[in-house]
Parts: sequence; structure tokens; C-alpha cells
Amino acid sequence: MFSGAQISLYPMADDFVSVIMAALTGLDPWREALRIETDDISTLLVGPPEVLFAAMRDLFVRAAQTGVHCVLSAAVSRGCPGEPDDPICMAQGGFARDLALPDRIAAARANVGLAAVTGQDVAAQFSLYPLGEGPHMDEIYGCIDFLKASGTFDRSKNFCTRLRGDAGPVFATLCEAFTNFGTVAGHVVLDVTVSANSPSAR
Amino acid sequence: MFSGAQISLYPMADDFVSVIMAALTGLDPWREALRIETDDISTLLVGPPEVLFAAMRDLFVRAAQTGVHCVLSAAVSRGCPGEPDDPICMAQGGFARDLALPDRIAAARANVGLAAVTGQDVAAQFSLYPLGEGPHMDEIYGCIDFLKASGTFDRSKNFCTRLRGDAGPVFATLCEAFTNFGTVAGHVVLDVTVSANSPSAR
Repeated sequence: MFSGAQISLYPMADDFVSVIMAALTGLDPWREALRIETDDISTLLVGPPEVLFAAMRDLFVRAAQTGVHCVLSAAVSRGCPGEPDDPICMAQGGFARDLALPDRIAAARANVGLAAVTGQDVAAQFSLYPLGEGPHMDEIYGCIDFLKASGTFDRSKNFCTRLRGDAGPVFATLCEAFTNFGTVAGHVVLDVTVSANSPSAR
Repeated sequence: MFSGAQISLYPMADDFVSVIMAALTGLDPWREALRIETDDISTLLVGPPEVLFAAMRDLFVRAAQTGVHCVLSAAVSRGCPGEPDDPICMAQGGFARDLALPDRIAAARANVGLAAVTGQDVAAQFSLYPLGEGPHMDEIYGCIDFLKASGTFDRSKNFCTRLRGDAGPVFATLCEAFTNFGTVAGHVVLDVTVSANSPSAR
């Protein structure tokens, strides 16, 4: 199954180019497991979900540690019918398992509990879009049940859910939402915004 | 039908707050037609699609005219089953019409031709997600046919389509894609990134 992400990093600073260039070192441990293509709007990462979310986490943490108000925006996709299979996308942990919804919720929650802490606090909001045939709202409501028990849940908003906490469990929550909900071979998109160092009080 | 958007504006500048505050005047002509709620990650706009896209255009053009590298990121949604109907969302022009796909493509193309020019050049990329039952890839391929004839088409990328040109026809193209494709009463999300003044050569 093809999986990848279009990601963009926005440092709110005059020297945004140098913040981005420094943050790119966060991708270094992941480069062999990814195909990467950049243009002036976004960077395409192609690879398995667990690598995509770990690479985004490390990129964003590196940028946020400068202290600059930074935002990462990403659209993460799996199973898009318009994309060919790619061997680089073989998931280690598997995509949505062939398990009942309550079992997937429990597995996702356990995995978030294992996430390493990075020391960087973030706020995030995301939406999950299971496309094509099937009970898409059941999967979304199941995902929301997982989120509320994840330890990173902040609150529901129109069209999306807010998370907060350390970047480690927050990105783990996103990865679990992406891989456990929606049909096993289905087309699923996760759209996420992650923010750090915002001057706006919550 | 409920329709709205979660939008964020990212000026890549140390004084990003003043760029955002100045750009907010672009929303003034549209405030009576919208419900607006802001937090530290995004601003919710609730209203009919033609107002949502016009308001986003005027906000973004105002920010881009400062010369700062700016990005607008938005998730625009209609027909979400989790949202109550709201009288403020009544579309003037209607959502996806009960017409055959070729007729919707022709109507969308004609409407983009009527869009006023703003004088601000932009680059954009977006994805359209028709959710729930129905032939979602047929609607996406129909939308791509429209885009290729829209005058704003740049190129296809993984998971999304790039547009370029004046902000007037580019935002009109986004509005037509959102309102003409996907089923009439269906749940449709459009995810878009608009960029101006990027130092990266195309």
C-alpha cells in the first residue's frame, strides 16, 4: 500500500529559511527509509506510517527548540487509488488491523503509552478522512473514543480534534489514529496542524 | 447544510502578529455573513461556501500585499454529519448541483472565467475529499478534468493538485471544486494551502 505525506514547516520569523534548514537535520535518521521531494509549497515524504510520523516529529521538535513560533502542516495519505504501490511503504507494524473496533482502540491506546518523551510541548489539531465505501462515521467515532483515552486529548472543535502535550505521545497518537482506523486496505487521509511557542494564550 | 472552514494564516516574519492583525481587515466586508471563532491554532469561519472562499481570498491578499512570505492553510467542510444545520450556511449559489458530471464541469469552468482579478499572484495546492457512500474517485477525476480546463491548473502532485495565478481565479477555482463535486447532500472536505512571496524559485 502506498503511504506518504505532503508536509510544510512554517517558522514565524524573518530568518525562516535558516530555521527550516537547521530543522532538516531532524530528518537525517530517517532519510534511508523515505523518498523525499521538495518544492516551494511542500515536501513529499513517501514511506511507512511509523517512519512518516517519527520523521515529522523529529523535524518539528528541532524547529520548535529554536524558541520560534513554528507550525507544521501535513496531509498524510494511505491507500490512495491513484498511487502505485511502492516497496518503501511496507509498514513494519501494519496498517489498520483486521480486529474489531474496541480491540483497535485498546491497541492504539497501549502504543501511545510507550511513546518516548521529547521535552517539547506542542498543541495540535487534526482530522481523519476514511474515503470510499464503508461506515466512515463509525470509524471516526471509534477514533474519537481512542483519542479521549489517549492522554493527549485536549478538546473537540468543528471538523477536527485538538491534542496537547509532549511531541512524543502527540505524534504517536496521530500515527495510531492513522493506522488503526478506516478499513485495512482503504484510502485514508489524516490532515494535521502542529504548533509550538505560540504567543496566543490558550 | 452546515459549511465552514478552519483557517490559519502564517506570515514568515518576526512581526507576524501585526501582519495577521492588518490582514484581518480583509474579513470586514464578510463579517455579517459569517460566524467567527478564534483560538491559538486556527480560526473557524461558518457560512456559505461563496462567502468562505471570498473571505479567505481577501484575508490572504491583504497579508500577501505586505510583501512578506505568507501561507494560508484551510480545511473547508460541508455536510459533516456531526454538525447541526445552521441558517447562516444557506448557499446562495447552491452546493453540488443535481446535474451530470460534464455539466458541472462546464458550469464550474464558466464561473472561474467570471472571477475578478486582485493583482496578487499566488501558488496553491489542494485536495478534495468526498466522504461517505458513493463513487468518490469518479467525483475526484471529474474535478481534475475541471481543474485542467480552469486556467489556474499548474500540475498534479502526490495527493493534491497545484494551482497558480491571480488570487481571484485561484480562489474561485477552489470554490467551484468544493461546491460542484461530491454528492449534493454529501460530506465533502477541501484541504488547501495558498502561498505568496516565497523565496524558493519554482
